[in-house]
Amino acid sequence: MHSTNWRELAQAELDRKTKPLGSLGQLENLAVQLAGIQQTLSPDVAKKRLVVFAANHGITEEGVSAYPSDVTAQMLANFEAGGAAINVLARYGGIDLQVCDAGVAQGTANFLKEKAMPSERCEAALEQGKAEARRALEEGCQLFGIGEMGIGNTTSATALLCALGGFAPSEITGKGTGIDDMGLEKKQRVIAAALQKYRLDCHTPQQWLEAVGGLEIAAMIGAVLEATKSRLPLVVDGFIASAAAFAAIKIEPTCQAGCFFSHLSGEKGHRRILDALGVLPVLQLGMRLGEGTGAALAMPVIEAAAKILCEMATFESASVSEKVI
Amino acid sequence: MHSTNWRELAQAELDRKTKPLGSLGQLENLAVQLAGIQQTLSPDVAKKRLVVFAANHGITEEGVSAYPSDVTAQMLANFEAGGAAINVLARYGGIDLQVCDAGVAQGTANFLKEKAMPSERCEAALEQGKAEARRALEEGCQLFGIGEMGIGNTTSATALLCALGGFAPSEITGKGTGIDDMGLEKKQRVIAAALQKYRLDCHTPQQWLEAVGGLEIAAMIGAVLEATKSRLPLVVDGFIASAAAFAAIKIEPTCQAGCFFSHLSGEKGHRRILDALGVLPVLQLGMRLGEGTGAALAMPVIEAAAKILCEMATFESASVSEKVI
Repeated sequence: MHSTNWRELAQAELDRKTKPLGSLGQLENLAVQLAGIQQTLSPDVAKKRLVVFAANHGITEEGVSAYPSDVTAQMLANFEAGGAAINVLARYGGIDLQVCDAGVAQGTANFLKEKAMPSERCEAALEQGKAEARRALEEGCQLFGIGEMGIGNTTSATALLCALGGFAPSEITGKGTGIDDMGLEKKQRVIAAALQKYRLDCHTPQQWLEAVGGLEIAAMIGAVLEATKSRLPLVVDGFIASAAAFAAIKIEPTCQAGCFFSHLSGEKGHRRILDALGVLPVLQLGMRLGEGTGAALAMPVIEAAAKILCEMATFESASVSEKVI
Repeated sequence: MHSTNWRELAQAELDRKTKPLGSLGQLENLAVQLAGIQQTLSPDVAKKRLVVFAANHGITEEGVSAYPSDVTAQMLANFEAGGAAINVLARYGGIDLQVCDAGVAQGTANFLKEKAMPSERCEAALEQGKAEARRALEEGCQLFGIGEMGIGNTTSATALLCALGGFAPSEITGKGTGIDDMGLEKKQRVIAAALQKYRLDCHTPQQWLEAVGGLEIAAMIGAVLEATKSRLPLVVDGFIASAAAFAAIKIEPTCQAGCFFSHLSGEKGHRRILDALGVLPVLQLGMRLGEGTGAALAMPVIEAAAKILCEMATFESASVSEKVI
């Protein structure tokens, strides 16, 4: 049986709209991608949700972050009170904001000393993320964003990316929330040591996730796997969420077609990761805050792309003359 | 008397918010710029308007555009009917859309043969743009975008930019709505010939505007001059609107602080122009449609920046621990 190629149909429809061919650039690509995911020429992403996955990280014992671990829980209280950046941006964008505690109180172990999490803990976190995606779908969401909060999580995300993508720690380790040059050097050493420590024992993405990952990262991986499988368009926030998407794509390559990469983070390694995936970010604003802030800002651009496909007139319907040269 | 430095105050306020210093990147710069223009720490750009300035161009006689001149008027009918890209994006963004006919029926003269417009016509177009800005202000607008429609206007805009910015035609002449390589070569030759023709007679920006400019470009220059003088934040669309802003800044350099450059167009010379001004675009989506489409998409990002400054909690108010490293 021949299956409908919604992406091709969507591009053909865009080419009939009253504008020079391809002149809406990446906005056209976003519309085509949405059409492909939702299998329609009238994509609709009006109902938006963003989930901030939060957890703590034992690796902070090594002094890899500029902020104390307490800040993770303090920021959850800030999310609750509505005062964080993501509250402001989600409110402004009409995005339902949810927080998923994937392990704030317990956190992971210091992965320089032992595996970050036991297998059962990892499975539970993956399942927690999948459940969030299922719930979003059940509640009628049409666009699902993932963000995170977890002091220390750039260290975990970078180690996971190095392990799964073959990047060198020197290539993609950045300053996270703002450590200094000495801190950066230490962070790179910690990551290199962890890669060395686990390289003989880890053979699959999930094994690496258990060894050096984070609970919020595992939950985000579960969310990506489930949302994309269910054709719920997924918006990836910045560096850490991209690490989760990268891992999900390593586990299940078909995931990628369902992911929108919202922005190019100011975090050093992010461009390298997006290039490795061959994807373009929607925004490039030098942001490096996490929480889903990039995803929240990109969602309206993605919805605008859907509206272009749904609402623009064609040359024929508007009686506009076509190209002569 | 010491005047309040609203930009510095705004940055200091952003630095107290619950986020690592500078971690909202360019969004912080947008908030600071808005604070500087509106002279407040609570910038408000809720009421948005975008004006599409339209006109025809005699230079199309030389075969410099992929579309016939008729398309300008046909697209105005499309704007009226609500089917153009800018209708879709303005509707989605909650932006009041207005069209200003700066000379569709009459158009300019073919500037290879004679001056594009007489001085009185130029003055009238400048005044028409100023009147649009004044009307926006009187009607309570807080964010004012400029876009354009005019078959042939990349040729005019490019010639004006070369004359005022010292760029070479080969450096910044692009394919506009989509001419082929032969058309591009012809377009460059036309621009070079025009620069040669008028170089001894033109000594001021306005003289060049009269020689090679367009009526919608003149109107946009007027709009930029008036809006920025009145502290009405102005959002510049793509290549042609940037040419108008560039000319306005040459006429009155203080204009620049009031201008937001909405996006990096796919049109070849745009990056060079923004670099020459030392400004960063809000979006980089490879769009090259005009009509104000880039401005319409950037406006919500600019408003989001205002909300960040107005609504985010501070470390103190949210009891979040500050940096330790």
